[in-house]
Amino acid sequence: MLSHIHKKIVLTENEEKTLVTFFNLKSLKKKQLVLQEGGISDSISFVATGLLRSYTMNEKGNEHISLFAWEGWWISNFNSFICGGEAKLNIDAIEDSTLLQLTRENYEKMLEAIPAMEKYFRILYQNSLTTKDTRLISANTHTAEEKYIHFLESYPNLIKRLPQNLIASYLGITPETISRIKKKIND
Amino acid sequence: MLSHIHKKIVLTENEEKTLVTFFNLKSLKKKQLVLQEGGISDSISFVATGLLRSYTMNEKGNEHISLFAWEGWWISNFNSFICGGEAKLNIDAIEDSTLLQLTRENYEKMLEAIPAMEKYFRILYQNSLTTKDTRLISANTHTAEEKYIHFLESYPNLIKRLPQNLIASYLGITPETISRIKKKIND
Repeated sequence: MLSHIHKKIVLTENEEKTLVTFFNLKSLKKKQLVLQEGGISDSISFVATGLLRSYTMNEKGNEHISLFAWEGWWISNFNSFICGGEAKLNIDAIEDSTLLQLTRENYEKMLEAIPAMEKYFRILYQNSLTTKDTRLISANTHTAEEKYIHFLESYPNLIKRLPQNLIASYLGITPETISRIKKKIND
Repeated sequence: MLSHIHKKIVLTENEEKTLVTFFNLKSLKKKQLVLQEGGISDSISFVATGLLRSYTMNEKGNEHISLFAWEGWWISNFNSFICGGEAKLNIDAIEDSTLLQLTRENYEKMLEAIPAMEKYFRILYQNSLTTKDTRLISANTHTAEEKYIHFLESYPNLIKRLPQNLIASYLGITPETISRIKKKIND
């Protein structure tokens, strides 16, 4: 985690030592739930190893994946974490994973103790806002083929770790459409 | 602007004096464009007085309003501001307005000069992320009537300043549907 944080900000050795005291280590088996819709998400998780997803489910039981998070990413039900209400989504592990979890209380204490982390989270949220905007615009303006190719190009290493039906659920297209696109690309 | 910033952080008198030097004042007439799709948005604007909107337009020329910003709000094409690419949306004034504009260059200089502003923007972006998530979930799960009533309750003062067709465009429903809902509420 520290090497990821150092890409955005500089911390002293003392700040690093203080920082790690605010986190709890959590190990997860594949398919294990971190958070279920209707629960309270009082923490935000840094993915140390593994791969997770967050998703919503509609009345028909169809899943829609909102986010994948792998090594170096953060995952949470952000609204529930910040505002304290019920979680509107589920989070589970696609692979065996290790998380560094930060509770809401420790998040506030950490920002008080290490002001440099204000900059880290400012940049993290800033990037998250631009990613969300890009994805929203893409959802409305790009074809299924463009979305799949963009995903391939953006996350070449992730493709090998994800079953096709999960990529389809993330992109909002059917697995059959992905098969068709793949065939077209390989022809 | 300073009173809005003071709701989130504490600044010394010297920091306040430094802060204001990074902003440019801009006056706008009603209907005047701040930014057009395809242009470069190199600044973020704090609304000192007035009311603005950001919107996209599809091939058929239909507008979809993504945001209203009035006194105390920020408005920008955030992606273009942060990443430097072409703007994907338009911004114009619904009323005569006054903006305090911060260029990308001055944004970076300001964060260097006044580290307390890291906290201000961390909280601003944090709130923006939760608002976006709430709106996304609401778009998929609430009826037109629920959306309109929620908007009424959230922004009672804004309703008087906005023509019905703009509220409809923001909520993604037709003006006729709003008329029907209003009639039902008043009956």
